[in-house]
Amino acid sequence: MAEAEGISSATPTEEMNGAGNLMDFLDEPFPDVGTYEDFHTIDWLREKSRDTDRHRKITSKSKESIWEFIKSLLDAWSGWLVMLLIGLLSGTLAGVIDLAVDWMTDLKEGVCLSALWYSHEQCCWTSNETTFADRDKCPQWQKWAELMTGYTEGAGVYVLNYFLYVLWALFFSFLAVSLVRVFAPYACGSGIPEIKTILSGFIIRGYLGKWTLLIKTVTLVLAVSSGLSLGKEGPLVHVACCCGNLFCSLFSKYSKNEGKRREVLSAAAAAGVSVAFGAPIGGVLFSLEEVSYYFPLKTLWRAFFAALVAAFTLRSINPFGNNRLVLFYVEYHTPWYMAELVPFILLGVFGGLWGTLFIRCNIAWCRRRKTTLLGKYPVLEVIVVTGITAVLAYPNPYTRRSTSELISELFNDCGALESSQLCDYINNPNMTRPVDDIPDRPAGPGVYSALWQLALALIFKIVITIFTFGMKIPSGLFIPSMAVGAIAGRIVGIAVEQMAYHHHDWIIFKNWCRPGADCVTPGLYAMVGAAACLGGVTRMTVSLVVIMFELTGGLEYIVPLMAAAVTSKWVADAFGKEGIYEAHIQLNGYPYLDQDEFTHRTLATDVMRPRRNEPPLAVLTQDSTTVEDVETLIKDTDYNGFPVVVSRESERLIGFVQRRDLILAIKNARQKQDGVVSNSVVYFTEDAPQLPASNPQPLKLRRILNLSPFTVTDHTPMETVVDIFRKLGLRQCLVTRSGRLLGIITKKDVLRHMAQMMNQDPESIMFN
Amino acid sequence: MAEAEGISSATPTEEMNGAGNLMDFLDEPFPDVGTYEDFHTIDWLREKSRDTDRHRKITSKSKESIWEFIKSLLDAWSGWLVMLLIGLLSGTLAGVIDLAVDWMTDLKEGVCLSALWYSHEQCCWTSNETTFADRDKCPQWQKWAELMTGYTEGAGVYVLNYFLYVLWALFFSFLAVSLVRVFAPYACGSGIPEIKTILSGFIIRGYLGKWTLLIKTVTLVLAVSSGLSLGKEGPLVHVACCCGNLFCSLFSKYSKNEGKRREVLSAAAAAGVSVAFGAPIGGVLFSLEEVSYYFPLKTLWRAFFAALVAAFTLRSINPFGNNRLVLFYVEYHTPWYMAELVPFILLGVFGGLWGTLFIRCNIAWCRRRKTTLLGKYPVLEVIVVTGITAVLAYPNPYTRRSTSELISELFNDCGALESSQLCDYINNPNMTRPVDDIPDRPAGPGVYSALWQLALALIFKIVITIFTFGMKIPSGLFIPSMAVGAIAGRIVGIAVEQMAYHHHDWIIFKNWCRPGADCVTPGLYAMVGAAACLGGVTRMTVSLVVIMFELTGGLEYIVPLMAAAVTSKWVADAFGKEGIYEAHIQLNGYPYLDQDEFTHRTLATDVMRPRRNEPPLAVLTQDSTTVEDVETLIKDTDYNGFPVVVSRESERLIGFVQRRDLILAIKNARQKQDGVVSNSVVYFTEDAPQLPASNPQPLKLRRILNLSPFTVTDHTPMETVVDIFRKLGLRQCLVTRSGRLLGIITKKDVLRHMAQMMNQDPESIMFN
Repeated sequence: MAEAEGISSATPTEEMNGAGNLMDFLDEPFPDVGTYEDFHTIDWLREKSRDTDRHRKITSKSKESIWEFIKSLLDAWSGWLVMLLIGLLSGTLAGVIDLAVDWMTDLKEGVCLSALWYSHEQCCWTSNETTFADRDKCPQWQKWAELMTGYTEGAGVYVLNYFLYVLWALFFSFLAVSLVRVFAPYACGSGIPEIKTILSGFIIRGYLGKWTLLIKTVTLVLAVSSGLSLGKEGPLVHVACCCGNLFCSLFSKYSKNEGKRREVLSAAAAAGVSVAFGAPIGGVLFSLEEVSYYFPLKTLWRAFFAALVAAFTLRSINPFGNNRLVLFYVEYHTPWYMAELVPFILLGVFGGLWGTLFIRCNIAWCRRRKTTLLGKYPVLEVIVVTGITAVLAYPNPYTRRSTSELISELFNDCGALESSQLCDYINNPNMTRPVDDIPDRPAGPGVYSALWQLALALIFKIVITIFTFGMKIPSGLFIPSMAVGAIAGRIVGIAVEQMAYHHHDWIIFKNWCRPGADCVTPGLYAMVGAAACLGGVTRMTVSLVVIMFELTGGLEYIVPLMAAAVTSKWVADAFGKEGIYEAHIQLNGYPYLDQDEFTHRTLATDVMRPRRNEPPLAVLTQDSTTVEDVETLIKDTDYNGFPVVVSRESERLIGFVQRRDLILAIKNARQKQDGVVSNSVVYFTEDAPQLPASNPQPLKLRRILNLSPFTVTDHTPMETVVDIFRKLGLRQCLVTRSGRLLGIITKKDVLRHMAQMMNQDPESIMFN
Repeated sequence: MAEAEGISSATPTEEMNGAGNLMDFLDEPFPDVGTYEDFHTIDWLREKSRDTDRHRKITSKSKESIWEFIKSLLDAWSGWLVMLLIGLLSGTLAGVIDLAVDWMTDLKEGVCLSALWYSHEQCCWTSNETTFADRDKCPQWQKWAELMTGYTEGAGVYVLNYFLYVLWALFFSFLAVSLVRVFAPYACGSGIPEIKTILSGFIIRGYLGKWTLLIKTVTLVLAVSSGLSLGKEGPLVHVACCCGNLFCSLFSKYSKNEGKRREVLSAAAAAGVSVAFGAPIGGVLFSLEEVSYYFPLKTLWRAFFAALVAAFTLRSINPFGNNRLVLFYVEYHTPWYMAELVPFILLGVFGGLWGTLFIRCNIAWCRRRKTTLLGKYPVLEVIVVTGITAVLAYPNPYTRRSTSELISELFNDCGALESSQLCDYINNPNMTRPVDDIPDRPAGPGVYSALWQLALALIFKIVITIFTFGMKIPSGLFIPSMAVGAIAGRIVGIAVEQMAYHHHDWIIFKNWCRPGADCVTPGLYAMVGAAACLGGVTRMTVSLVVIMFELTGGLEYIVPLMAAAVTSKWVADAFGKEGIYEAHIQLNGYPYLDQDEFTHRTLATDVMRPRRNEPPLAVLTQDSTTVEDVETLIKDTDYNGFPVVVSRESERLIGFVQRRDLILAIKNARQKQDGVVSNSVVYFTEDAPQLPASNPQPLKLRRILNLSPFTVTDHTPMETVVDIFRKLGLRQCLVTRSGRLLGIITKKDVLRHMAQMMNQDPESIMFN
């Protein structure tokens, strides 16, 4: 190290005041420097540089004493510790949420007399009734009307139950929206668009705070229990990220560095999906593909660890009572056939269309909410939507129950012991097959009535979800999207199955659907449909397939899933490139630089400011600006920083100084350093000249000057500039020509330019 | 689009001659421009820019006619088509290799009389013998000695079989090394270090060529069949990448752009691992984690597609005859217990130590091969090592068979029908348990003799693998590493099992190992050991665990695998950061910029050239250099390019010109443009001044000038510079101070500096 420093031509301390040494100076006098203001963009390079500095300090100190060495070890391991804690807490929270939702969803219909805190299933767990149909009707579990009136049948009972169901739903959702309004406004929505933005380097204070964590957890339970068409998956990612942020604050390594903090948050997002579906690998890929911005390999490994810990914590809590990690555990017994790819691809097309429809309508509705009176009454909106949902949902058995139960039933294959209406097939009395290999049979009346109920449920879900997503309560859209797809898929599946049964002499069925063969699995169609619809809405691809793969646990069905997911993505992309999260990011105007390629022929000079008719760039000179000039400049402009040049004539750039640092430095100097007055000259040079005593004391500010500002030439194509901003996470970039400073490009300029180009020529993006 | 261009202040064609327009000029006159020389580094930004240009051209043309529109669609879909082709070909090749290896490995011992091209297993497939033990001894299959002498037993027979085994091995390996030597020298080794280097942006012509593909495929079969301690996994990645390169040449989109080509190769690498293990997701993650350099999301999705197609192609060929996708399919029936984490972690420590030992010894041996006479006789070396391997391997049944068979047996749980020596337990005659749930039993004599044979095999494998990896034949080290770990794991597993059986009253066993319980699965230990050893050598983490997860197909065993993989990585990292591939990259001096963080306090000024005592930087001026000056400069120096400045006095940078382009442009001008003589002045300005007729014709070269060269200031910390080189894939970067050109930093300078820093202060890297 000593020799390495020796290479440097000047004295190291004087010379090395790039981004690195900024800290030495800032550490002591002003605690605030190095942090960012709310709703500002972070500078990734600077954060990284600061972390390297911190790391270097610890490493060099670690040789001094055993204690310092232990501290350095602790520092090195703190990343893993944070991951462990995140996994444990988010797994626990997910388990608690699952249990609470289970109980409260059932509470809308009735109560367990043996123990009030038991859900319907838990209540009847110990029941003596052995058949599956009767097990649901164990005596310990009583519906509200039964408890109140003593009768179990009759119109009055039905109406009373109906009324109480709606009332409970309204109560839950009112509580949820009120809690959100009063305690944590950031707890609403799915949170994924905001987390994407935060991970890309934006500061939203309090978005991942403790209050948000608490309120989001509680209101999520309420919102899901109220029976609204929303899921808990997106919000669980938000909750996990809040956990991540919480544990970051325990370690200065993460709490004081916005870049490092984002590494933790990326991993936390993986843990969130991991507990949402019980799919740790899918969670990591989701974080990589969908959420994260900067995902180094180190984070990949840690995210995987956090996701696993979370999944295993959830499994030890075992909220589903089936010892399974996954939300919808399924096992199919029959393979799929090539000809089935046709309906699978059709489901993909449906998924893509649904995705497009949902995104367009939802965004239009949300825009209306933002711009009209509607946005002024969020509580009323939630109450109304809940009321409509509950009133319409109760009569239909497929919408009355919780959406995840519905999906679970739709995914399931009809075994011999299944009591569901969907499995009401006419059995062949001579059948002597093993339990899990039942040949295709004709559908009974139950199946037909289930079919039209499902069709109604499909329309209902499609419409109500559009209005639900975006209200001021926690709401994820994985589950509603999957429900839409699963219903459509199951309907298609049953149709194909019946067609195959009744027409097994048709050419397409001849090879694989002989009479008595078990050739069509309607549950698989439901799963493929769910994947297609989820893919259409979110545009996830690999992570989606991997999550589904983890749900089924077999590579067997990857091809159908992939065919549907790809088709859905292609169809949806044909109508518009962005998924629901990007659409919401754009709707809210977050400064998010997405990964799409920029293909326009503009140059840096077209984007930089000042434009041709604007006043020249606000710059500081290295040795001729007075404190007063600087203060005037700060007051008159609201730029985040100022370039420093040799002189106004030569316009040779020497560095860049942050507005925040400048304000703090001048304030500090005026307080502490005698003789610094408005007339004092500010020097950014290495040495201030010896001035006569009559002149006011100079103010030397080289230490807050970033001597390595990022520059590009004015001829640089914008695609390169966009690439640089994206990959290096810059906040701003200076534009020069032959060494002369011409202008500046900020992240906002880039975003504005990209939006402008996109609107002018949407087609050029299409064939990417 | 029209308006977007209107923003530009100058005329678009004149103005936009950054990297983008380079092509317009280069397309026609010199076909070579825009390509790179062998063993040179590519400029990612430039490649990207060129692709955007090509894409823009196609998009704008697509509106002209239907035919152009179809062409643009084809262009957009060519990526998927290439993936499909790669998947199909690499899956097929992997299947063929598997079948051929199977047959030729058995050929060393005997031959199938009913059909010469049957392997031992296929030969006895149709045999009538029903017990497992006898099935291997079907009459159709005859050992060589039996065929020649008619006897099946006796010392003479053994010696003859032994002799022929060695002879066949020598023949195979001689053939392999000769083919490699004569036809495709690049076909040797695992290929992964070189592929990593190529993917990071280096050109090695022919490394992925058709000859390499053909010879590597053939010699891989020979090398594996010869019984050497090597595997086919690494070379399969190389083969898949050759396929990728082959199909790239079908589409100009990929063949003419080195950056796009690398996207395809990344996906091909995933397909390679996918067929090697039957683990498509693991393959994608391997490519992401271990091999690839630049891995955009688009590639992730395509890689997944290619990996799936490859896996399904392989499965349709079904070389293992078990309808399973994976190489080592296992199913365990008992869960693992917390207390078992102790032996698992110990296996992790063993794996880390093995990794360190292997890397150190192998690198030392390879260095010796490079520097001493040894390297002069590669054929002899292969022959000698094969001879030693075969002579030592034959007597031990665990080393005689192919390594993958050995691993497969070690992974397997002992079922009731297992005939292996390893499953020679003493059965309780009263046992009436189901077949797959056998309680722990005392080990029989077969197990004990297996144990010491395994111990000998372990030592043999450890030593011989060190000398085998790096010889001039295709050789992967996944399988040998896994074998070492599996042997160690199985030994530990049996030890724990017997301890638990004999001492089930010990506290640690009390809770989970009651008499008659099936509590320890030695096969699981073998798998954990294999993961640990593979992790220690390659430092893979997530992809390793995912591959293992895909092998077992259950999340159940992820925790043991992860515990072992993490321990192994940590132990190995404590002795040295680099895995075997990085070590080989460094040994061969490839310009590979790894992902490790650079944490030293040096600045750009310390690394740039010219150094203090060196002559000044070779620059061109924009309007005062003559053709002769340029030619002299080109002759006298071997730089890849030259900065162009306004004048030598002001040293203001205006651009950068590539040596290759300069040579071609001058050559072309001298041939085609009249009046360009040695005295002609070269102009890089926008307009050449009107010269009197007496002066020689000026040469205008602005079009080959890159007007957006990358610059940093001399105060930029090297960690930032390294980051920029890594993320943007630069070839060189110019260093300025206040607009004046000071020097240049090339990728090689960065690498040299990093190596220098690393050697001076290896510790500072440790706690990363």
